[in-house]
Amino acid sequence: MMMKQANSLQDHPGAAPGIEHDEIVGLSGGNETVRITCIDYNPGNVLIQEIEDLDDFLGHHRPEWSNVRWISVEGFSNLEAVHALATKYDLHPLAVEDLLHARQRPKVEAYGGEESEFQARLFIVTQVPKIEEKILHHEQLSIFVGHNTVLTFQQTRSEVWEPVYQRIKTKGSRLRSNDTSFLAYSLLDTVVDRCFPILETYSDLAEELEALVLERTQPDLINQIHQLKRDLLSLHRVLWPMREVVAALQRDPHECLSDTTRVYLRDLYDHVIQIIEIIETYREMVSDLTETYMSSISNRMNEIMKVLTLIGTIFIPLTFLAGVYGMNFHYLPELSQVWAYPVFWVICFISAAVMLLLFRRRSWF
Amino acid sequence: MMMKQANSLQDHPGAAPGIEHDEIVGLSGGNETVRITCIDYNPGNVLIQEIEDLDDFLGHHRPEWSNVRWISVEGFSNLEAVHALATKYDLHPLAVEDLLHARQRPKVEAYGGEESEFQARLFIVTQVPKIEEKILHHEQLSIFVGHNTVLTFQQTRSEVWEPVYQRIKTKGSRLRSNDTSFLAYSLLDTVVDRCFPILETYSDLAEELEALVLERTQPDLINQIHQLKRDLLSLHRVLWPMREVVAALQRDPHECLSDTTRVYLRDLYDHVIQIIEIIETYREMVSDLTETYMSSISNRMNEIMKVLTLIGTIFIPLTFLAGVYGMNFHYLPELSQVWAYPVFWVICFISAAVMLLLFRRRSWF
Amino acid sequence: MMMKQANSLQDHPGAAPGIEHDEIVGLSGGNETVRITCIDYNPGNVLIQEIEDLDDFLGHHRPEWSNVRWISVEGFSNLEAVHALATKYDLHPLAVEDLLHARQRPKVEAYGGEESEFQARLFIVTQVPKIEEKILHHEQLSIFVGHNTVLTFQQTRSEVWEPVYQRIKTKGSRLRSNDTSFLAYSLLDTVVDRCFPILETYSDLAEELEALVLERTQPDLINQIHQLKRDLLSLHRVLWPMREVVAALQRDPHECLSDTTRVYLRDLYDHVIQIIEIIETYREMVSDLTETYMSSISNRMNEIMKVLTLIGTIFIPLTFLAGVYGMNFHYLPELSQVWAYPVFWVICFISAAVMLLLFRRRSWF
Amino acid sequence: MMMKQANSLQDHPGAAPGIEHDEIVGLSGGNETVRITCIDYNPGNVLIQEIEDLDDFLGHHRPEWSNVRWISVEGFSNLEAVHALATKYDLHPLAVEDLLHARQRPKVEAYGGEESEFQARLFIVTQVPKIEEKILHHEQLSIFVGHNTVLTFQQTRSEVWEPVYQRIKTKGSRLRSNDTSFLAYSLLDTVVDRCFPILETYSDLAEELEALVLERTQPDLINQIHQLKRDLLSLHRVLWPMREVVAALQRDPHECLSDTTRVYLRDLYDHVIQIIEIIETYREMVSDLTETYMSSISNRMNEIMKVLTLIGTIFIPLTFLAGVYGMNFHYLPELSQVWAYPVFWVICFISAAVMLLLFRRRSWF
Amino acid sequence: MMMKQANSLQDHPGAAPGIEHDEIVGLSGGNETVRITCIDYNPGNVLIQEIEDLDDFLGHHRPEWSNVRWISVEGFSNLEAVHALATKYDLHPLAVEDLLHARQRPKVEAYGGEESEFQARLFIVTQVPKIEEKILHHEQLSIFVGHNTVLTFQQTRSEVWEPVYQRIKTKGSRLRSNDTSFLAYSLLDTVVDRCFPILETYSDLAEELEALVLERTQPDLINQIHQLKRDLLSLHRVLWPMREVVAALQRDPHECLSDTTRVYLRDLYDHVIQIIEIIETYREMVSDLTETYMSSISNRMNEIMKVLTLIGTIFIPLTFLAGVYGMNFHYLPELSQVWAYPVFWVICFISAAVMLLLFRRRSWF
Repeated sequence: MMMKQANSLQDHPGAAPGIEHDEIVGLSGGNETVRITCIDYNPGNVLIQEIEDLDDFLGHHRPEWSNVRWISVEGFSNLEAVHALATKYDLHPLAVEDLLHARQRPKVEAYGGEESEFQARLFIVTQVPKIEEKILHHEQLSIFVGHNTVLTFQQTRSEVWEPVYQRIKTKGSRLRSNDTSFLAYSLLDTVVDRCFPILETYSDLAEELEALVLERTQPDLINQIHQLKRDLLSLHRVLWPMREVVAALQRDPHECLSDTTRVYLRDLYDHVIQIIEIIETYREMVSDLTETYMSSISNRMNEIMKVLTLIGTIFIPLTFLAGVYGMNFHYLPELSQVWAYPVFWVICFISAAVMLLLFRRRSWF
Repeated sequence: MMMKQANSLQDHPGAAPGIEHDEIVGLSGGNETVRITCIDYNPGNVLIQEIEDLDDFLGHHRPEWSNVRWISVEGFSNLEAVHALATKYDLHPLAVEDLLHARQRPKVEAYGGEESEFQARLFIVTQVPKIEEKILHHEQLSIFVGHNTVLTFQQTRSEVWEPVYQRIKTKGSRLRSNDTSFLAYSLLDTVVDRCFPILETYSDLAEELEALVLERTQPDLINQIHQLKRDLLSLHRVLWPMREVVAALQRDPHECLSDTTRVYLRDLYDHVIQIIEIIETYREMVSDLTETYMSSISNRMNEIMKVLTLIGTIFIPLTFLAGVYGMNFHYLPELSQVWAYPVFWVICFISAAVMLLLFRRRSWF
Repeated sequence: MMMKQANSLQDHPGAAPGIEHDEIVGLSGGNETVRITCIDYNPGNVLIQEIEDLDDFLGHHRPEWSNVRWISVEGFSNLEAVHALATKYDLHPLAVEDLLHARQRPKVEAYGGEESEFQARLFIVTQVPKIEEKILHHEQLSIFVGHNTVLTFQQTRSEVWEPVYQRIKTKGSRLRSNDTSFLAYSLLDTVVDRCFPILETYSDLAEELEALVLERTQPDLINQIHQLKRDLLSLHRVLWPMREVVAALQRDPHECLSDTTRVYLRDLYDHVIQIIEIIETYREMVSDLTETYMSSISNRMNEIMKVLTLIGTIFIPLTFLAGVYGMNFHYLPELSQVWAYPVFWVICFISAAVMLLLFRRRSWF
Repeated sequence: MMMKQANSLQDHPGAAPGIEHDEIVGLSGGNETVRITCIDYNPGNVLIQEIEDLDDFLGHHRPEWSNVRWISVEGFSNLEAVHALATKYDLHPLAVEDLLHARQRPKVEAYGGEESEFQARLFIVTQVPKIEEKILHHEQLSIFVGHNTVLTFQQTRSEVWEPVYQRIKTKGSRLRSNDTSFLAYSLLDTVVDRCFPILETYSDLAEELEALVLERTQPDLINQIHQLKRDLLSLHRVLWPMREVVAALQRDPHECLSDTTRVYLRDLYDHVIQIIEIIETYREMVSDLTETYMSSISNRMNEIMKVLTLIGTIFIPLTFLAGVYGMNFHYLPELSQVWAYPVFWVICFISAAVMLLLFRRRSWF
Repeated sequence: MMMKQANSLQDHPGAAPGIEHDEIVGLSGGNETVRITCIDYNPGNVLIQEIEDLDDFLGHHRPEWSNVRWISVEGFSNLEAVHALATKYDLHPLAVEDLLHARQRPKVEAYGGEESEFQARLFIVTQVPKIEEKILHHEQLSIFVGHNTVLTFQQTRSEVWEPVYQRIKTKGSRLRSNDTSFLAYSLLDTVVDRCFPILETYSDLAEELEALVLERTQPDLINQIHQLKRDLLSLHRVLWPMREVVAALQRDPHECLSDTTRVYLRDLYDHVIQIIEIIETYREMVSDLTETYMSSISNRMNEIMKVLTLIGTIFIPLTFLAGVYGMNFHYLPELSQVWAYPVFWVICFISAAVMLLLFRRRSWF
């Protein structure tokens, strides 16, 4: 369950904060084999390589023509890649800790700069939402943005960057002719856009639940409603700090962030706000669902009570009357009348008819 | 449904942001034929033309006397008009994306200016609410305000601007003697004023529902109440950012915005606030409606229970008594008494009367 | 109903904003005959005149000794008075629109000043709450404060200013020896103080409803509770912006506003806050009332169910027993026993007693 | 009731604001006889006098050695004391109005100063909470802090200052060696500390109510819960502005306020925050209580319904069976069988046993 | 109970604020024997001593090589230690009061500095949450940070600092090579990290309760749910001001706070935010639990009502019919028919079958 995960990597209160570069290799981050992709591009050239031997690769210089180098690490089974990159690019111990520990809150931090021992870097942590087997997961994506290099780290492999690769391969695309911060923006934009199909899924689910609630009152419907509510809340909890991240990027100047990117971040900000508002709308709908569910239970109860009352009130007096003439009193004059039995039935029908009329007038059925 | 629409135009996560001018023509924006209207005016002259051949039209210069040119594009079936205008007036790719993608959040952006590659423009996106066949729609209106030109774009044709045309045609009207920003203000004012009749519709609906809730408890009433609630929420979600738009226009100086317009925007701001407060009041009323509905169900249940209990408690003891004298015990002394049967009835009446009195005293009926 | 009124004067979306001075006469603002009162005063003299011929009156100069001139217009049946004053005192078109259109949100606007085409004026709009035939109304009061003149406009006649007239007539009163802004403050203070008796009415009503809720559960009580809730909300919606108005007057310097008045406005601000808090307290109480109402329904249901269950559970087994001995089996040994009938009754009494004891122990009655 | 009091002293809308010194004597403020205490102290000396003849007393100078003079007025039956002090110490008319009108919101005002016609004074209004006969009252305390003098006014006598007197009498106490602002701080601290025992009372009451709710569902419990809720709200409404008062004193420099006092006010601020949080916690608890109460009613109803259903479902079919064999058909073969009657009972017992088993399995009892 | 504790040490309203150094010894703070530990360290050396005779110890100078001295006092049974340290390190009376009075709100105060009579110190109060016998406790931890010395005070002994000791003993650890503020940060980090296992406990409890709610409706479940809610609230109330403490430390420069520590505090801030969000998520879940509980009660009631209605509606008409043929009318023609009894049973079965079919169609069972 979601809650368990939250503290899985922080179970030693009092342990040292930050992860030194030497400590990285000793850690284990999952059993997915590592995939490292390196993409170099400028407006004229692109080179995409899947890297097998990272140490060897890092020993060479990048091509002269490369404006932007993007190294993407997917999978933490072997942390040597993280170690090598952390050393080569001089990443801050706290940032390394954050990228290894899943379930960080989305955030942006500006490490380093002119007066610091570390190089100027933007460190962005975000969560990529995805639905697997009807369960919402968040996969952490950590992005380091430098002057010429972007590093991304993810715990598992995923096909989420395919369209970004396509745009890099397309000659003349806006992405190709821009800098590292525009690449970082494109990655964030992709993450945010992934929310739309997820929201569509939830919209379908909400409508389905609404139909079910009106049809019948299964006891576990309320749990499905609460699960939907919790998923929307969980999505909200990721998008809300994401809003702060995009706002901070757009607002605070940083040497790795170009003006062009800043204009596009304004657009991304609008998207994030829009998604947050859709989530809010859905949450209102789900809360209405609960209300409908409760009123549906009450209505059904009402209906059942009406039938019981109807039958009860019609037959109880008649049963009493039948009981009266079943009494064994020796002196019970009606018993010996010829007309008594037909009259009994007439009384029964009239009584029932009057009852039904009264109930109909009160619109009970 | 509303939710589906939200993501209809953003289904490729990772796709490039912004729409370049060359890409526009390849897109499709609906099947409504395009209507392009061009209005030139100054305090003395007005010229209204419906444009068939836009390319030809854009090739000519505007009349010498024209202070303000307003080009209104309604319908996106053929995006060549958008393309031609985007090229001619040098619109920002992100703005073009926003105007084509429906369901943007109302916003204002100041593109361009002295130090920018783009010309100084205010780009305003708003949503025009309308009720069609009892369903609330929002139609997007995009406004570009330049020094001498106002461009407006809408996905479908509508008669909403008729009164604005009238005021432009009226010699000496305040609108005629002012600049482009006053025209933009007048358009926004018209959009905001359209909310009043819509709110009146909802007010009527709320009263109707209130009457129905008190009369009878149909199971689908709660859905109608929730639908009303959702419509009000949807209206609120459009008006709330509208408030920000008007506040931003009024607050932030821009070279295309005159001082006179700014004073009128203050008035518009008051209207938006007033509508938001009316919506809030209605939402409170609708939430009260739900409460009334639930209490109405409870009351009805109560009433039904009372009748059942009344009939039950009166007859159950009597039925028992009748049962007693229907027993076949050989030695049952009352059976042979002449007075037994009349006394039985007397007991019945007295018992029923006592019961009724007790219930009346507890004010059960 | 309240909601209808809200949009009664704004039913032409797209109509021109502001009301030019020439347009005023053509409008109709109700059927109450106009009453115009003019009061001139200084510490030594007072002159109160009811004006019949406004044009003639405006043609003359005010008395030399007059420090403050207050012209009060009550009733809009004939808008010539508004026209004449708007022209004479050069009122802003938007302000004129606001004073004619009822149900404005309370606000303060500083029109004009040294660099403007209009003269320096404070324009204050407020709503005077009053209860007529148990229904809460808000009557709009518009105040223009100039250097030497105060203009007030109201849609209907009212006796609300009587105590202010008294204080003006009283020689040596603080009001007499102060300027126009102090008069405006006194008017606002009077409006705010009128809330106290209204709140007392609601307090009485709330207590009455509380008593009724505990006594019996009439179906329309919930509506009365909601009406009270709505009235309090409506009062809150007027007082809340009133708070902003007083805060703005106290905070923002204006040439028509004296320092003495500013100190008194601080006191007025405290009163407004106090009223808002009382309203909040009452709203909490009313929301508790709903809770009490619902729990009262539940309790009553509970009580009814208890009686039904009591009677049912006592008699149902006994009725069964009576039924058993009413069977016509030929071989039913108990029937022929002499002790059978008395024993039957003994069993009945014991069974009923045991039942009652059990219920008593579970404290069901 | 609380609500009545709120407007008892403001029942003349339109009356003049502020109370001039001459008007004081004409007013009546209650029937408690006045007690005036004057305390002079410096680190070395203390003089406590109960003053009978205030005019005579004010005619004399204070002792040379007196650093701080504290005059405490308790009871407003005779307003001559207030008049005399207001004249002597030149109190602002609005402040005099505030101190006479009970139920002010706690506030602090800085009257006077170098450029003002009035002397530099801090005017602090606060409410002293106390529980009398299980009802929460707030008694208003008004404090004027000058350079060498502190004046306090209260409507009724109280023993609340006893410990402060003790600390003044104690040689070497921090209070003795500090200035007027420290005395004012000590008074406020005493007021705030009085909340702790009151909160303890409410804590006990809450626990008591919780026990009662679980035991049985008296109809008036919900009212007691609401009363507790209202008391906590009322306490909150006093403490919340108190927080602002202490924050303002601590933040805004004033010539009558020493640096030492400011450090202690930071501590007082922490106490106020702590009390507000305790109140919040209690309010959450009380709101839980309501929930528990409603669920307790539902549970009880449930239990009652179970018993009814149990008895009903067991006996209704059996009663039918007995009815069948009570029929008088001539050809009813079972009637003449010897085994019929015992078999009837066997069927009864089996049927009842099966029912009970079924219910047990569904864990109904 | 929690509430009692809140005011245990503040039961003398009006008592003097702050605790002078001379007064400390006279107080009693519990019956746990005191344990005093002193740790000196620099990058090269560590010395850990358990101190028996504090006076003697304070008489000696610290080792030359010691960069940081940390004196930890656990247990307040004998307040001489507190007195000695307060005197030696010149602690502010209000700080001493705060450290002795349990249940302070977490806060940070900067006492002293260049222009003050007291030395520069950061005084941090925090609460260490722990669960003992299923009950949540908060133990207060007070930290004084000076230039070379850290003092910590706790009311009871605890093993919470074990891992910090380990890190101090580890040569080359970041903690060893940093200053006092880094030690303080490490202590706060340890306190915050302790929340994770506690949250895991609550997560388990919430799941357990959820399962129980769905299974059966014990009356005391609602109390367990409320207890969980209250514990989460209590944790929230400690973490929320903790957030402010960390934010203040990170934001406000202080001479005892190094830049390195400040970067790490940013990380700690993220952790606190994350815990607060987890608590919020859990609180939403618990509130859903209540809803599920109430709907579970309603569902069960529904189910019971259905069974009663089913049995009732099937048998009541049949019982009436049996009653009819149990009547003793002399002229009741059906009685003498041979086919009457079998036909009676056929009618019974058909009637029951029709009823069951109708109910099945309405999906009642």
